[in-house]
Amino acid sequence: MFRLCKALAPKQQWVACIYTKRSSSTTMSSWLEKPIKGVLLDITGVLYESGEGIGTVIPGSVEAVEKLKANGIPVRLVTNETCATRTAVINKLQVHGYKVSEADIFSPVPAVVAILKARGLSPHLLVHPSIEDEFKDVIKDSPSCVVIGDADEAFTFENMNVAFRTLMTMNKPTLFSLGFGKYYKHKGILQLDVGAFASALEFACDVKSEIVGKPSPQFFGAALSDIGIKAEEAVMVGDDIVSDVGGAQKCGMRGVLVRTGKFISSWESHSYVTPDFIADSLAEAVDRIIEAHKK
Amino acid sequence: MFRLCKALAPKQQWVACIYTKRSSSTTMSSWLEKPIKGVLLDITGVLYESGEGIGTVIPGSVEAVEKLKANGIPVRLVTNETCATRTAVINKLQVHGYKVSEADIFSPVPAVVAILKARGLSPHLLVHPSIEDEFKDVIKDSPSCVVIGDADEAFTFENMNVAFRTLMTMNKPTLFSLGFGKYYKHKGILQLDVGAFASALEFACDVKSEIVGKPSPQFFGAALSDIGIKAEEAVMVGDDIVSDVGGAQKCGMRGVLVRTGKFISSWESHSYVTPDFIADSLAEAVDRIIEAHKK
Repeated sequence: MFRLCKALAPKQQWVACIYTKRSSSTTMSSWLEKPIKGVLLDITGVLYESGEGIGTVIPGSVEAVEKLKANGIPVRLVTNETCATRTAVINKLQVHGYKVSEADIFSPVPAVVAILKARGLSPHLLVHPSIEDEFKDVIKDSPSCVVIGDADEAFTFENMNVAFRTLMTMNKPTLFSLGFGKYYKHKGILQLDVGAFASALEFACDVKSEIVGKPSPQFFGAALSDIGIKAEEAVMVGDDIVSDVGGAQKCGMRGVLVRTGKFISSWESHSYVTPDFIADSLAEAVDRIIEAHKK
Repeated sequence: MFRLCKALAPKQQWVACIYTKRSSSTTMSSWLEKPIKGVLLDITGVLYESGEGIGTVIPGSVEAVEKLKANGIPVRLVTNETCATRTAVINKLQVHGYKVSEADIFSPVPAVVAILKARGLSPHLLVHPSIEDEFKDVIKDSPSCVVIGDADEAFTFENMNVAFRTLMTMNKPTLFSLGFGKYYKHKGILQLDVGAFASALEFACDVKSEIVGKPSPQFFGAALSDIGIKAEEAVMVGDDIVSDVGGAQKCGMRGVLVRTGKFISSWESHSYVTPDFIADSLAEAVDRIIEAHKK
């Protein structure tokens, strides 16, 4: 069963935030002082490393997720993954040993489809071919908006131009971006993510994306609301310092960065995001959370 | 002979300007009040329309350029064209009937090569294949910067990723953008220009382009300096409301928009650039200038 993000406001916009660097008084040790009643997890780079086929599981991550659940700390997975259907993501996680279901995952595609239905919009798609079918109920003859996702190799010059020209025909160009990541690791190497290509269209058409996915506060909010906790009671763990960590902090959550996935060492002293904690992996982050939880 | 733009400062940056909409007191009739001692012209969309082969000359433009010269008003061509060598551009113009030489044209390629030489930088190129040869004197084994031009169909997903990864290997990523246009007309249809793809790399790498070409004030300044006049004595005529008209105005020139080339009607009430005059074509703009000049 798909759980649509009802909390997503129809006209949400997350415009390049001006982050305030946390002061040095917010030390890494203080992040465990307030109770943690729920944990949000990114998937790729936290639960498994991308790679050929289904990639490889990150050591200790399966056990970490189970440990959280065993200690009564609810977990939700929040991903901007739009290169595969949610069913395909679940299948991959289950093969890796994770005991998760579709209801645990919050991803941008069902969320944007719900928004398009609510606003009566028909999309032109610049997305990965594998998810095009999920839009079949909302596609009509003439597009009234453009939806851009991580199209991967479908980000051709021609496809970018078609999306651009489609926006230019609209009186009020409307662009939905499924997440707004800068880059991710694909088969071991960094690759440009949807935010880069959405930025190109934003610049050319003088338009701001409506972001559906991390770091949109509404998107995080839907997962928190599903658990039934406030932002200050939650921790987000991810491998993207801007979308995961900075985005979570902006919503009032604590943001933990892991040194797995697309982590790069320069992020240890990132110019505008200071994680509440940097863990070698999810396993280390969860060990700290459980220790504090038991006190 | 190539005339390099010596006036280009080594670390020029033209960062998304905040234009101030001109007040209504700057009416369209007042643009001819101050003497005009030189005219800068964009090429594509002002002198000829792009299209199959060499495109088609814009009626009246050849005569307009001659009329300016005959009235003692010097003309320089300032273009962001990087899909062809300067020699190829000149050849095309001469076939259309224009009496121009390479010394009349200011284009980004020789300017950026001069900057690279002066700063001892070796570029990774994401440019149109036809101009790669012009960089042969500055390319060494290991790139220390990326140069992005209007690569046209060479803006593949793979090429964008290679440029991105090259920037990510640098301690201080350095990106030169040859112009920063939003889009242009190619064979009759709008196509994304270099500024869109440079924006994608800027976003992904947290870097600001050093722009070589319009609307960089240094680039306009090199052409003005070549004529030997001040900005307030010059008029720039172009079909790009932001790079040509807005850029010229920001430098203190008057900016005239033509309703040829990539002109779109919504620019008549553009949100942040108000042209000093909007002419149906270069011919009309020049007629007005000459009339005022003779008074």
